[in-house]
Amino acid sequence: MNPLTSANRLFAPLFIDEDVAARFSTDRSMGDFHAFEAALVDAQSATGQISAGDATAIKDGLKSFEPDLDAIATSLIVDGLPVPEYIRQLKAHIGAPHSDAVHLCVTSQDLIDVDRFGANPLTGRTRMQAALPITVAQRVEPWRTSMVQAAAELERLRPKIEIVQLGGPVGLYRHSKGGETHATAMAQALGLYAGAGQWHTNRSSVADYANWLSQVTGGLGKMGMDMALMSQQGIGTLNLAKGGRSSAMPHKKNPVLAEVLVAFARHNATQLGLVHQALVHEQERSGTAWTIEWMTLPGMMSTTSRAITLAQKLLSTVVDIAGPPQND
Amino acid sequence: MNPLTSANRLFAPLFIDEDVAARFSTDRSMGDFHAFEAALVDAQSATGQISAGDATAIKDGLKSFEPDLDAIATSLIVDGLPVPEYIRQLKAHIGAPHSDAVHLCVTSQDLIDVDRFGANPLTGRTRMQAALPITVAQRVEPWRTSMVQAAAELERLRPKIEIVQLGGPVGLYRHSKGGETHATAMAQALGLYAGAGQWHTNRSSVADYANWLSQVTGGLGKMGMDMALMSQQGIGTLNLAKGGRSSAMPHKKNPVLAEVLVAFARHNATQLGLVHQALVHEQERSGTAWTIEWMTLPGMMSTTSRAITLAQKLLSTVVDIAGPPQND
Amino acid sequence: MNPLTSANRLFAPLFIDEDVAARFSTDRSMGDFHAFEAALVDAQSATGQISAGDATAIKDGLKSFEPDLDAIATSLIVDGLPVPEYIRQLKAHIGAPHSDAVHLCVTSQDLIDVDRFGANPLTGRTRMQAALPITVAQRVEPWRTSMVQAAAELERLRPKIEIVQLGGPVGLYRHSKGGETHATAMAQALGLYAGAGQWHTNRSSVADYANWLSQVTGGLGKMGMDMALMSQQGIGTLNLAKGGRSSAMPHKKNPVLAEVLVAFARHNATQLGLVHQALVHEQERSGTAWTIEWMTLPGMMSTTSRAITLAQKLLSTVVDIAGPPQND
Amino acid sequence: MNPLTSANRLFAPLFIDEDVAARFSTDRSMGDFHAFEAALVDAQSATGQISAGDATAIKDGLKSFEPDLDAIATSLIVDGLPVPEYIRQLKAHIGAPHSDAVHLCVTSQDLIDVDRFGANPLTGRTRMQAALPITVAQRVEPWRTSMVQAAAELERLRPKIEIVQLGGPVGLYRHSKGGETHATAMAQALGLYAGAGQWHTNRSSVADYANWLSQVTGGLGKMGMDMALMSQQGIGTLNLAKGGRSSAMPHKKNPVLAEVLVAFARHNATQLGLVHQALVHEQERSGTAWTIEWMTLPGMMSTTSRAITLAQKLLSTVVDIAGPPQND
Repeated sequence: MNPLTSANRLFAPLFIDEDVAARFSTDRSMGDFHAFEAALVDAQSATGQISAGDATAIKDGLKSFEPDLDAIATSLIVDGLPVPEYIRQLKAHIGAPHSDAVHLCVTSQDLIDVDRFGANPLTGRTRMQAALPITVAQRVEPWRTSMVQAAAELERLRPKIEIVQLGGPVGLYRHSKGGETHATAMAQALGLYAGAGQWHTNRSSVADYANWLSQVTGGLGKMGMDMALMSQQGIGTLNLAKGGRSSAMPHKKNPVLAEVLVAFARHNATQLGLVHQALVHEQERSGTAWTIEWMTLPGMMSTTSRAITLAQKLLSTVVDIAGPPQND
Repeated sequence: MNPLTSANRLFAPLFIDEDVAARFSTDRSMGDFHAFEAALVDAQSATGQISAGDATAIKDGLKSFEPDLDAIATSLIVDGLPVPEYIRQLKAHIGAPHSDAVHLCVTSQDLIDVDRFGANPLTGRTRMQAALPITVAQRVEPWRTSMVQAAAELERLRPKIEIVQLGGPVGLYRHSKGGETHATAMAQALGLYAGAGQWHTNRSSVADYANWLSQVTGGLGKMGMDMALMSQQGIGTLNLAKGGRSSAMPHKKNPVLAEVLVAFARHNATQLGLVHQALVHEQERSGTAWTIEWMTLPGMMSTTSRAITLAQKLLSTVVDIAGPPQND
Repeated sequence: MNPLTSANRLFAPLFIDEDVAARFSTDRSMGDFHAFEAALVDAQSATGQISAGDATAIKDGLKSFEPDLDAIATSLIVDGLPVPEYIRQLKAHIGAPHSDAVHLCVTSQDLIDVDRFGANPLTGRTRMQAALPITVAQRVEPWRTSMVQAAAELERLRPKIEIVQLGGPVGLYRHSKGGETHATAMAQALGLYAGAGQWHTNRSSVADYANWLSQVTGGLGKMGMDMALMSQQGIGTLNLAKGGRSSAMPHKKNPVLAEVLVAFARHNATQLGLVHQALVHEQERSGTAWTIEWMTLPGMMSTTSRAITLAQKLLSTVVDIAGPPQND
Repeated sequence: MNPLTSANRLFAPLFIDEDVAARFSTDRSMGDFHAFEAALVDAQSATGQISAGDATAIKDGLKSFEPDLDAIATSLIVDGLPVPEYIRQLKAHIGAPHSDAVHLCVTSQDLIDVDRFGANPLTGRTRMQAALPITVAQRVEPWRTSMVQAAAELERLRPKIEIVQLGGPVGLYRHSKGGETHATAMAQALGLYAGAGQWHTNRSSVADYANWLSQVTGGLGKMGMDMALMSQQGIGTLNLAKGGRSSAMPHKKNPVLAEVLVAFARHNATQLGLVHQALVHEQERSGTAWTIEWMTLPGMMSTTSRAITLAQKLLSTVVDIAGPPQND
């Protein structure tokens, strides 16, 4: 929650990944909210829980619904999340009698969690590592291996992470009549996995995802540390085309991106510890644990994606890697 | 570095403190940069290190200088910080022959650190605790005490934190001829303490400041935890005028702000560990350690200031505190 | 590295798991060292890298070899690990000409890592959860699920964690002639997986293992938090047969073990962040990163195993769980 | 809580500081407990709260009292702390009618906290830094400064940390008749500061002490990182008399202690975050927060003291520091 990125256009480009930021943008959030409510009424009308007329009216209403965002933002500080005010506005927009069928038997977390983990945009980028020079293969091998492992691991994690959340107030929705059918239909409509049960209170998949994010930045941080060490004057086994400038010593060439990768790794390692603090959440839902997840996961995702991009940029500036590996 | 605040106008108001954000805004950064360079040439011309003509030309030039912010943001990813491009633009704006006297013998950190720690806006707000009900004085005492202690401690810390940074490339500026005089003059001009020596590499004051921030949120987190526990149904020793709504159960009243205070405390506690990781910085300056500070301190400041504001808001909603304190 | 457990016989039983401690005992370490060296000469003589006579002489010598432990402990502070002095003593014990065939082409990490991750003793204990009352099934479900998931996950992780380490000085042993054959033979002899390549510098499996440990304590910490909340006077949905006594209020019954489970969860969550800091290790091997692993993993293992035992003990004291779950 | 030190005599000398361990030993704990109870009855009889006969009988009884340590260790797992069983045994030892005057109106935390913070043994050792070579003064300056600052800071912190704890069950002892007088007398008898009020629930001084410990290891970690970098082949600005050996490459000389100092710094930085998590403690006393303190503080103290000792050892092996400082 760092104002260096929200309030300062100079620093934001270093730290914020545009793709990840787009995932958390106001527009995208609202779009996801709409999609969830539409998928929900489709699923519920298919099993007769609500009438076809209700479903049609609500889906039509969603098309023309433009939420009052200022009112939602203001309510968020009171309610702790944006959903209650969104639903209130949506119901008012739909109007009686159909408004009673809006958001039926579900709860805020069902809506928010979909927003947070659907369609993770980080995957495709890890393939860049193939172009690495092979003359220093042993040094580079763990850099590459950690990325290859991470790519494979992400595929394994997807069905644990990209799951539809449909629990209702105390997590029993899917035990209710038609509940599992609704969940399957909604997962299909939203491009998610159905998973098993609700995950209000068993956040192990969130913690595993955070572990994965820190594994990625940790692997890239090791590369950054190695490259910073290799580019030291006196060692000189790495020659970069261009580095950062110094305001006082214009002739210097600093391995800025390598150092930034180390900082990103240490950042995510620390945040991972905080995500795991949120495993201790009380009873059927914990506002504290949930807030901690919001404070850490988007930043970890942005940092990870930014690390991948900056690592590509750093590797593209390699002019020469020469000489025998430094001894250990 | 959380896109929930930079990209999402719904969540930003919960997490971002406007006053702190203003401290880190682009405009404020540029204003601080200008003020530093002006104070520097004043100090240097007073001791004859640069000519009065240079000083006048540079100060005049600063008045009409409008940096190309996009270019600075782009360069920041290369240089790791905004200063080199800023100085390049400023020198071009000033033009020969006076441009040689710009930013003479100083380095980026001298400029950036001033920006980050000058005139901390958090202090004045801790006095709100006086209005607390005294009928539950023993429970409330540690809430109040921790804030009173923090207010006193901040006064003690100010001269350690709000110090002018003037080190030059390898930290020797103040050992150079006129160096101490320049530092004293600049500190006075910028409303800072002169301190002793440079603090490129001894970041203990930064770590102490982070410790202080986490002490504040820790004290408020204890209050939040207590208030959340006191407002449980069945305990019922705390009655709040209004709490957050539930999207599924409109009759519920959630102690949202109390839970948020706990999350803020756990957040800052974890970030403190990361700031201390940055005590291990290499040689005369570490890009990694410095980047870690940027990734943590502004967010800790914003979180702390937000915690103080939300704690006031929470306390203002107290309708009743009744019954004996629950025993442990 | 807490002297409360090494120097204080009162506190040690609370924190130290005997099974895990036995895994890290001096005797067990020395036994593992012996087993590794014996397996190594078997593997190397089978491919003709050393003679059968050397192998026999070394294995015979190992049977009568009693290391000077004080000398090893003293050397550890100089060498940073116990292996060099152990090998020096072993070679002296074997004597010329066979001593040249001892520890051939391998390095300390090959020996130490085997010691640390072979045959993890934590698995078998997670089955205790089956006896939980089903009348509060929804509250209890995530307690149980997190343990079931962890048990399954451990099976998946075993082949990543319980792998033989055979890298040699710069990690190339398995690329050398006969190297893969030796690794396979040694893995079989030691009851480990062969894995792929060395893992000097790609410590992602160590980090995944730490993530798993914190998942277990996180799941049990959630249970502890719930049980502490349920046993509050005024809530009273949980009645424990016996709790801890208070020195000042003998009538009180404190949910001590529930609170301890929360503390263990927060402890491991934090240590996980530190293990991930060790992903940033320099070049072909990092003394810093390795030392950090020693400082965290054994304690995480002990804490996790202790948490499982104490959770069983806590659940065995449940007299009654009654009433509707408290709403949130 | 690391079995590497409690169960393994090879690793213990690297990580455990004997002086700190002695502070936490069983004998010392029991001695502190005795001293506290004796000082308490002296203070209470001086104000007439208990009779002189009771005081004399209890002090006489303490002289011959040998607690059943196994019984205390067993009870600690039930009670969460050693005091209730200790008091039960002591009362049985004293016998009626005097036993009623034992431990009157006080609580376990009063006794335990005295044990933990009285007479910190870390101070005296920081003066060794004066002998540092001055030819590389600029590089070395922040190493020295951080220690000098820490020594001064410790003097400032002592009156905040080394305070008598006398709160009674809910923290009101010192508000009771004679309470302040008793506290002052006990502080004097025990060589502690009287402080103000109880500190059951305002643990800011514990957090500040942990911050100080991490400042010390952070400063030494910076030195370790610098020395490891300076001793790289190719840089070669630092020549150590002896380093650690490699089991595979006997000719190598590893800067083991420098790397260990970095590991210690990262360890304490992380633990500091955990200590601050314990600022969020519930109501009048939190078993969770207190347990977290036990799990972190003794280890931080041992690590810090060990870091000071190893830093001295490392500095004593410096043969030569030559050449210009490496540029940044």
